[in-house]
Amino acid sequence: MVGAVIVKDGKIISEGWHKKYGGPHAEAEAITKAKPGDIRGATLYCNLEPCCHTNKQTPPCTPLIIRHKIKRVVISNIDPNPGVSGQGIEQLKNAGIEVISRVHEQEGEFLNRFYFNFIKNNRPYITLKIAQSLDGKITKEMGTQTSVTGKEAKRFVHQLRAQYDAVMIGANTVNIDNPALTVREIKGRNPLKIIIDGDLDTSAEAVVFNDKSLLITSKNADKNKLAAFKEKKTQIILLSPDNSGKISFNEINNILAEQKITSVLVEGGADIASQIISKQLYDELIVLQSPEIYGRGLSAFNLTENIKLKIKSIDKLGEDLKIIMQ
Amino acid sequence: MVGAVIVKDGKIISEGWHKKYGGPHAEAEAITKAKPGDIRGATLYCNLEPCCHTNKQTPPCTPLIIRHKIKRVVISNIDPNPGVSGQGIEQLKNAGIEVISRVHEQEGEFLNRFYFNFIKNNRPYITLKIAQSLDGKITKEMGTQTSVTGKEAKRFVHQLRAQYDAVMIGANTVNIDNPALTVREIKGRNPLKIIIDGDLDTSAEAVVFNDKSLLITSKNADKNKLAAFKEKKTQIILLSPDNSGKISFNEINNILAEQKITSVLVEGGADIASQIISKQLYDELIVLQSPEIYGRGLSAFNLTENIKLKIKSIDKLGEDLKIIMQ
Repeated sequence: MVGAVIVKDGKIISEGWHKKYGGPHAEAEAITKAKPGDIRGATLYCNLEPCCHTNKQTPPCTPLIIRHKIKRVVISNIDPNPGVSGQGIEQLKNAGIEVISRVHEQEGEFLNRFYFNFIKNNRPYITLKIAQSLDGKITKEMGTQTSVTGKEAKRFVHQLRAQYDAVMIGANTVNIDNPALTVREIKGRNPLKIIIDGDLDTSAEAVVFNDKSLLITSKNADKNKLAAFKEKKTQIILLSPDNSGKISFNEINNILAEQKITSVLVEGGADIASQIISKQLYDELIVLQSPEIYGRGLSAFNLTENIKLKIKSIDKLGEDLKIIMQ
Repeated sequence: MVGAVIVKDGKIISEGWHKKYGGPHAEAEAITKAKPGDIRGATLYCNLEPCCHTNKQTPPCTPLIIRHKIKRVVISNIDPNPGVSGQGIEQLKNAGIEVISRVHEQEGEFLNRFYFNFIKNNRPYITLKIAQSLDGKITKEMGTQTSVTGKEAKRFVHQLRAQYDAVMIGANTVNIDNPALTVREIKGRNPLKIIIDGDLDTSAEAVVFNDKSLLITSKNADKNKLAAFKEKKTQIILLSPDNSGKISFNEINNILAEQKITSVLVEGGADIASQIISKQLYDELIVLQSPEIYGRGLSAFNLTENIKLKIKSIDKLGEDLKIIMQ
């Protein structure tokens, strides 16, 4: 996610942003939209280092900036892509352009956290989303579905889904909630649905398998049961269970990285959430908390150890609370 | 809690506030501090209706306002005290003074919620304070003391204690935490300590009984055990247990109202918190929530019913979260 603004004599003269993978870069769009004479001597603000590499769909941005005689470039983040990684800045400086970098660096890092993480760690950025009551429950009664939060929180979850490459849930959540995991409350694209189901407890008739989905199960899964999924729009991945009989999250991450899935929103349930928390596999934890005490019901986590998190932001979301933690 | 500001020609010319029970009222202080000639034709802003009743330690404020020829009086709240209750405003209007009332009425009501509640309901305002982990636990392990929140939250609790007439805890909290319940982190007066101990499970040697305290126990309590408390600075109240063997909170409220205790901060534990929540006896619920998952440990509430609350405000308090609910 990159935006560019060209400023001259204290006035914005052009803007651009990167609309889709393979499309024109933000800097190129901003330069193309402006009158060539106006740009000469202007300042270009851009949250990511302009690219200089040529092994891709679009031409590099640095020659364009140099050719249009832009005087100064202000950047938030150096591109961690090894093909750029400071070389874009180097080219600009060699052409006599003043470059100021690391301006609002943290905000820029947060904006492009999926991309930066993928380049750095070669695994998807994992956000765990929990909707819980004030007393840490995800259902009012054991084994029943509960709409924990209100409509504003629901809308926010749909916004999240549209931002992530994939949404992940476990077999229990499929069986109890039977969710569609589609984007309905806002306009946006549907994410890939990933279902973790080591024992193959789900049914291919569940709503989630009506759309593009990825079923991750064990190599020992029942072949007859698997056949039903093969008739659906479901890609099946068979993994070896670990010593405790569970599918290893590290192996799942490797599979997802191979498929270029850069971001996963984990929507539950308690087993998967607890595994991810316990193994410190999350990059972000979003808790949507309703101001209600349930008393009975299933706890959001089934952990036996203490895990310390750090609050990044808090907000009210309708009648509920949104807590973002890292 | 009353403040008064006198304004003339868009400038503040005098201010006053009510410093203690029996001391000069805010309006009187503001008028006394200003030069008499300056006040003529000025506007007096005051969060509570000026008093007109004479059966008290200080003279009424309305004659003073009238005598100094103040032109306009702007008020947040009408005094619910039956001796005033609109009659103060009436006297001002009869003297030709313009009166505008109910300005920032809700803020004024919140500021004086202890007093307004006491006048209206003849029982103390009850605030329940819970310090819990993200997963709703108040201890890391069963039966052990846990410092759930950080130093900023601790300081805030001491601020609360200094604001309330009394702090209340149950026998389990005395036995497990052995708290002093004094104000140490800030400068402020110590509240009365109220200990609810139906079965007389606490020891008179507990720290809390070293200071002014009120022990509420059952009429059936062991007389020998009680003798030890009588040697301390402890007032003992004996009540009849209800059908379930517990002391009724309504009866406790009546006793506290007789003693002119207008506000009680309940600091736990789970049993008392759950009783108060379940019987809807709280006026305010303050949850200090640490971004930590405990897994094991004691839950903040032991309820079997759903209780819906309403978030009034949220704030970060150091690394923790402060949620005020009603």
